[in-house]
Amino acid sequence: MKRFKFLCKPEVIYGVDSVLSIPDIIKKIKCRKILIVVDKFFSKTDKFAKIKSIIGKVVDFVVFDKIEGEPTTETGDECGYFGKENGCDCVIGIGGGSTLDTAKGASIIITNGGRIRDYQGIDKVPSPGVPKIMVPTTAGTGSEVTFTAVFIRKDEKKKGGINSVYLYPEFAILDPSLTLTLPPDITASTGLDALCHGMESFLSRKANFLTEIISLNAVKIIWKNLPVAYSNGNDLKARENMLYGSFLAGIGLANAGVTAVHSISYPLGGKFGVPHGIGNGLLLPYVLEFNLPEIKEKLGFLAKELNEEWKDLSFEEASVKMVEEIKNFLEVFKIPRLRDFGIPSESFSELAEDALKVSVPIENNPRSISKQDIVEIYRKAY
Amino acid sequence: MKRFKFLCKPEVIYGVDSVLSIPDIIKKIKCRKILIVVDKFFSKTDKFAKIKSIIGKVVDFVVFDKIEGEPTTETGDECGYFGKENGCDCVIGIGGGSTLDTAKGASIIITNGGRIRDYQGIDKVPSPGVPKIMVPTTAGTGSEVTFTAVFIRKDEKKKGGINSVYLYPEFAILDPSLTLTLPPDITASTGLDALCHGMESFLSRKANFLTEIISLNAVKIIWKNLPVAYSNGNDLKARENMLYGSFLAGIGLANAGVTAVHSISYPLGGKFGVPHGIGNGLLLPYVLEFNLPEIKEKLGFLAKELNEEWKDLSFEEASVKMVEEIKNFLEVFKIPRLRDFGIPSESFSELAEDALKVSVPIENNPRSISKQDIVEIYRKAY
Repeated sequence: MKRFKFLCKPEVIYGVDSVLSIPDIIKKIKCRKILIVVDKFFSKTDKFAKIKSIIGKVVDFVVFDKIEGEPTTETGDECGYFGKENGCDCVIGIGGGSTLDTAKGASIIITNGGRIRDYQGIDKVPSPGVPKIMVPTTAGTGSEVTFTAVFIRKDEKKKGGINSVYLYPEFAILDPSLTLTLPPDITASTGLDALCHGMESFLSRKANFLTEIISLNAVKIIWKNLPVAYSNGNDLKARENMLYGSFLAGIGLANAGVTAVHSISYPLGGKFGVPHGIGNGLLLPYVLEFNLPEIKEKLGFLAKELNEEWKDLSFEEASVKMVEEIKNFLEVFKIPRLRDFGIPSESFSELAEDALKVSVPIENNPRSISKQDIVEIYRKAY
Repeated sequence: MKRFKFLCKPEVIYGVDSVLSIPDIIKKIKCRKILIVVDKFFSKTDKFAKIKSIIGKVVDFVVFDKIEGEPTTETGDECGYFGKENGCDCVIGIGGGSTLDTAKGASIIITNGGRIRDYQGIDKVPSPGVPKIMVPTTAGTGSEVTFTAVFIRKDEKKKGGINSVYLYPEFAILDPSLTLTLPPDITASTGLDALCHGMESFLSRKANFLTEIISLNAVKIIWKNLPVAYSNGNDLKARENMLYGSFLAGIGLANAGVTAVHSISYPLGGKFGVPHGIGNGLLLPYVLEFNLPEIKEKLGFLAKELNEEWKDLSFEEASVKMVEEIKNFLEVFKIPRLRDFGIPSESFSELAEDALKVSVPIENNPRSISKQDIVEIYRKAY
């Protein structure tokens, strides 16, 4: 006997040029001043100029564009107080996961005051933020549909997520035309993050018969379209599918959670600046390999769905081959290995201890995992 | 550009013997007296005796078991006032779609008073009902996840749905062991209803990239498992899959709507007592045939998903073959034709007029449809 509650909170507007519907949303929710949080890169595009122009016709706004890489708690605070001091009653985030997370964090600072680090943890946000309109320009974190925003505590060199029902965005705009200019390396790292959300939520202990369908489809879509979007960034159909796949994987993540991949990757980001998607993608095959004794049937099923020519294999055979297939898949994207980030192998033990503290994904992992197991996984990814 | 809001409201408890979790739910929602609405057939089973016994240990209850076939508005009123006069603050429905719909109707009568027919239509219920715990014993209507309850207006010989956000059940218990004793004809008629929910919501104009995945999977599950559950009612795995498939199809229905099949079937039930699932199943291939010019690609895609051996066909070829395949599929269940219900063909014109008045599914239909088109469909199903 199992139980679940299923949530897909935002109203979704999707398709090419759906970003142009922002003024309609603003009128609908009747806000008076908007904090636009935007990627530095995207803030310089003609598209952003156009977005500002159509928003400016219906409401006042201010722009925060100081996000570089994954946000620190200080960046979140600065963004939030910028919005608060300007009297903003709505936040629009336009960018990758870092930008969307910053916008989500700012939305609760505006209403609750305090600091981002006060709210890191589970259910620590006292009251709702201002409404959040999320416009992803990468197909990655699924932040537009999740209840999480991750910020780095610079002093402790640690990442920490704010996890709260008040972080669910009210609106998600999935406009594939915004992702066309993403460079291949960002396409790869964000897409691999989405792949991990799909795979991990599919295999999570918390998965159920509804999330499994959504996660499995997310994986199928990403597996097929990520190499295309990577090698030809202008392929609009592939970009569109990646955006839908990432959103679906985000629903999987929000409802079934992720597993040890995310826990083991987290400290690499906090301590050594390994980008979130790269860390996850790199670790994925080794964590799956470790999990194999507990996931043969389920991973085998997924493997056979992805590889038509494996249909006569047993689940066990397919699951083993799938781990190798993921390693081959990753090679396409030329992602660096742990050694390339200058991580000394002596730090593995401390990193593993930190990984175990990211306890929710560890609990969701289909096989129970020890510090020594994690050290071994770091070694393999070295 | 399209938009959607997605809702799957109930907390779901699923798996064999999940019905035994009812006392936990009762304690959680802290209700004091329960109205149990139950199928006449199920009310006489040992299982129901056991359910009453475990509920009786935690709370008082009264039982309403006067449901015969699809409920009239009078049955709904009687059930509601029985609960109201007994001071019930929670409703449990255990049975098929008729029972669950009656329970949902009663829940709003208890709090709002009035009569069922006051609330037939869209958004006519003024305030929430008492909490609703839904326990389907058929794999059919998906009533446990939808916002609709259908009652027959006996005087007008018409069916009418109450459609209201206040009809979304708070809890759905999917216990396949309860469906094991369903006779083959009910397994077929309810299962065909679920198949229509899956297919129609997949093809509905209101479908989106999330509902399409759920509807498609519902169809795949039902297509594979309904013949098994029909020919061997004791196959627990098939029963379980049917229950999940019906639930998923219900999510499709609740979020993307159904199409002309339901509109054309409705008057057959109201005027000539054609069971809902039979009417829908019988009409499905002819409505699809009519819709073909607008659904070649989508139905072809679905067809190729269902029939591995069609993978080299074009979408158009597969879509045409699928219509015939559904006719073959229906033959397995030996469902009657319109003539078997003593429906005079002279009534088709009036029935078609009534069908057009069931306007929401008509608007969702992928091809616009006229009175004459509907008459032609009745003729084919004769």
